[in-house]
Amino acid sequence: MKYSDLRKSVLDANVELYESGLVISTFGNVSGVDRERGIVAIKPSGVSYKSMTTGDIVVTDMDGNIVDGQLRPSSDLDTHLELYRSFKSIGAVVHTHSFYATAWAQSGCGIPVMGTTHADYFNGTIPVTRQLTDDEIRADYVRNTGRVIAEAFGNKDPLSIPATLVNDHGPFCWGRDAADAVHNAEMLEAVARIAFHSRQLSQETLEISSALLERHFQRKHGQSATYGQSGRSR
Amino acid sequence: MKYSDLRKSVLDANVELYESGLVISTFGNVSGVDRERGIVAIKPSGVSYKSMTTGDIVVTDMDGNIVDGQLRPSSDLDTHLELYRSFKSIGAVVHTHSFYATAWAQSGCGIPVMGTTHADYFNGTIPVTRQLTDDEIRADYVRNTGRVIAEAFGNKDPLSIPATLVNDHGPFCWGRDAADAVHNAEMLEAVARIAFHSRQLSQETLEISSALLERHFQRKHGQSATYGQSGRSR
Amino acid sequence: MKYSDLRKSVLDANVELYESGLVISTFGNVSGVDRERGIVAIKPSGVSYKSMTTGDIVVTDMDGNIVDGQLRPSSDLDTHLELYRSFKSIGAVVHTHSFYATAWAQSGCGIPVMGTTHADYFNGTIPVTRQLTDDEIRADYVRNTGRVIAEAFGNKDPLSIPATLVNDHGPFCWGRDAADAVHNAEMLEAVARIAFHSRQLSQETLEISSALLERHFQRKHGQSATYGQSGRSR
Amino acid sequence: MKYSDLRKSVLDANVELYESGLVISTFGNVSGVDRERGIVAIKPSGVSYKSMTTGDIVVTDMDGNIVDGQLRPSSDLDTHLELYRSFKSIGAVVHTHSFYATAWAQSGCGIPVMGTTHADYFNGTIPVTRQLTDDEIRADYVRNTGRVIAEAFGNKDPLSIPATLVNDHGPFCWGRDAADAVHNAEMLEAVARIAFHSRQLSQETLEISSALLERHFQRKHGQSATYGQSGRSR
Repeated sequence: MKYSDLRKSVLDANVELYESGLVISTFGNVSGVDRERGIVAIKPSGVSYKSMTTGDIVVTDMDGNIVDGQLRPSSDLDTHLELYRSFKSIGAVVHTHSFYATAWAQSGCGIPVMGTTHADYFNGTIPVTRQLTDDEIRADYVRNTGRVIAEAFGNKDPLSIPATLVNDHGPFCWGRDAADAVHNAEMLEAVARIAFHSRQLSQETLEISSALLERHFQRKHGQSATYGQSGRSR
Repeated sequence: MKYSDLRKSVLDANVELYESGLVISTFGNVSGVDRERGIVAIKPSGVSYKSMTTGDIVVTDMDGNIVDGQLRPSSDLDTHLELYRSFKSIGAVVHTHSFYATAWAQSGCGIPVMGTTHADYFNGTIPVTRQLTDDEIRADYVRNTGRVIAEAFGNKDPLSIPATLVNDHGPFCWGRDAADAVHNAEMLEAVARIAFHSRQLSQETLEISSALLERHFQRKHGQSATYGQSGRSR
Repeated sequence: MKYSDLRKSVLDANVELYESGLVISTFGNVSGVDRERGIVAIKPSGVSYKSMTTGDIVVTDMDGNIVDGQLRPSSDLDTHLELYRSFKSIGAVVHTHSFYATAWAQSGCGIPVMGTTHADYFNGTIPVTRQLTDDEIRADYVRNTGRVIAEAFGNKDPLSIPATLVNDHGPFCWGRDAADAVHNAEMLEAVARIAFHSRQLSQETLEISSALLERHFQRKHGQSATYGQSGRSR
Repeated sequence: MKYSDLRKSVLDANVELYESGLVISTFGNVSGVDRERGIVAIKPSGVSYKSMTTGDIVVTDMDGNIVDGQLRPSSDLDTHLELYRSFKSIGAVVHTHSFYATAWAQSGCGIPVMGTTHADYFNGTIPVTRQLTDDEIRADYVRNTGRVIAEAFGNKDPLSIPATLVNDHGPFCWGRDAADAVHNAEMLEAVARIAFHSRQLSQETLEISSALLERHFQRKHGQSATYGQSGRSR
């Protein structure tokens, strides 16, 4: 990917995220990584989505040092960087405070697989992190947020469940690239919303069988995917 | 009906479905059947609703063999075909993951007749299917989805209750033609939404009397319908 | 009021009702009465709100005989007529299946005065009717719907609580004129929505004091109203 | 600030409030204060947001005497004035009946800090006032509404928690200036909505640690704020 293409894809994804309705105020940011070049492109902090240009997108190295751009990067940058370090297969990270996903995060509960909408995108429970300790909050808070995500996630394939809820906070999502990560953030919110209403209708566990989970996730993502026109497109 | 008219009506119904807001991502598809010709027209898999053309609509025979069209049909095709085999009076099938209907499906509950909005369109409880067995999931899953719908539906007139919830999954609806089936999908979502809120306000059964159910359903659909300008229009 | 003005005000109110988002499908209608002339103007049955013209509005006498218009009147006409007979001070009637008001109606509960939003428009609990008997459903159903509204309403001033919920069905609202009645239908839905969420947060009774109810209702509607620019405007 | 600038900022904030979707009917008003001149600019009562002009904004002294303007001021004026007297650091007041904040107010519960969205804007529980006594309702009601807000608020810094819920009624918010106060009203509604859904998912207390609260509030509002491009912008 060309340098300018990364920046453009991150700009487009931030605009798409804003237009999706998932962003409350300025609580939303997308970054993308170019692992060969060792650079990350991310939304600037507190800038309006409506007027943002490619040049406003901040480019840093993998340690967060600014390589290109006049503006301060998103204050969540260190969480994004930690996720790129922990999850080698991902190409982009999205953070939002979307309503239903954030309500689940605030309740401290992961989202169990209650139906095939979930299974089509997320191959298991959407994990929720433990709460950070006071020490983790007081020093290196933003990076520690990334660390508890990786801790909650464990050894699973990050692209098989491309989202985690940060306890007391909200969701982080990811994907192969910036557009894919934004799409996953939209699907997480839809899944969280349906799961909320299902739980209100029935307090039972409501988890689907592993056979159904596997059938649906593989239908869209497996080697022999049968969905879409080219096998692995979404 | 002319061959091209079927395809056009299915295209229009897919676009109407998208514009109704019932479709999450690409989770939505409409098909129509021409029983004299023995053909079915259905949405292609994973194609954007915004750019779809008449030529993109895939035409198959009643066994799902492609008769016309360059694209792969919706991956739900075999469920649609099974419904056309089981329900002789229907002319179109719609599948969505609309929010409230899907929440009811995920909770494993049918939707009882709690009011006249429901009774105007659905002459009884919206059924929910049993869960599929692991064997039914692992082999011939899509067709088996149609089979459990027919099993849950039993001997009722399909046009008297033009919808069923697939457990752990979401709604399938149908109608006389593609436009009618999409309208039924919209009414199912409205009914599911009101029923959700009624159930939250009161945990009692809340079913209306059979006299009221009959009065309302016949008002719109019976031989002596008194609604609309021509007796049987909606 | 001129004859044509009544028809125009009823057309405008039907369009406003449609644009308010309160109408599901064609479940919504407005009528207005000219008591001097003894005529009622009402929406035609099952006609699209988008294409309706003044000439489509049906004019009947107080017994429902068509005086002017080519179309069949709303199938709810007899309920409207019964309300005009029972409530001498009202000038218009609105019927909708708006979501939250209908959920309360389906739960069989009236809406208690839980806050000042309610008190500003409705001087007490929004009543819910009893359920109709099978006999009342089987003969003269539409008129009997009006009768149970009047029965539930009792001796109160209709303009002090311009709405009632028909059990198992949905709301009927009214007002001084068609625009006022539509505004009351909008306020009922807002009040029903806030009350739903208040009830979810707390199962307690949550009724406000009679002093607060009186203070707010009189602020907008009393002889010494202090709201708006001319004392009695809304 | 110039005299005309205050009026303009109050007009713009009232229009922004209307466009935010927080206002039901005409239940919403914004005022701003110029403490050097001792004047307050406020929305006129019962006037449409769509047609309002700068000249319609009413200007009063700190006792509510009209200094400039042809229209009657908002009937909530005395609450605004009382808040300006009690809270010396605020520059503007906003009142709405926004859905979720009003539901919390009607339930008589303050909104605990359940997550970082809340903590970013409100440094503690959003307080709810006690109910007014009948005497307080019958005489000087509007001013007493301001008094119970100040009583509930106590000695906290008004800009650290720029909102309070009036029991049985709805929210009052404030800020450094009119635009800031409207933004706080929007954030209150978002926080109230997420908190509602979190509470439905779990009846536990769900309060975040004081370390996390402090970390987030200071991130946006403290001396060493790290959010945005200039340290203290939002």
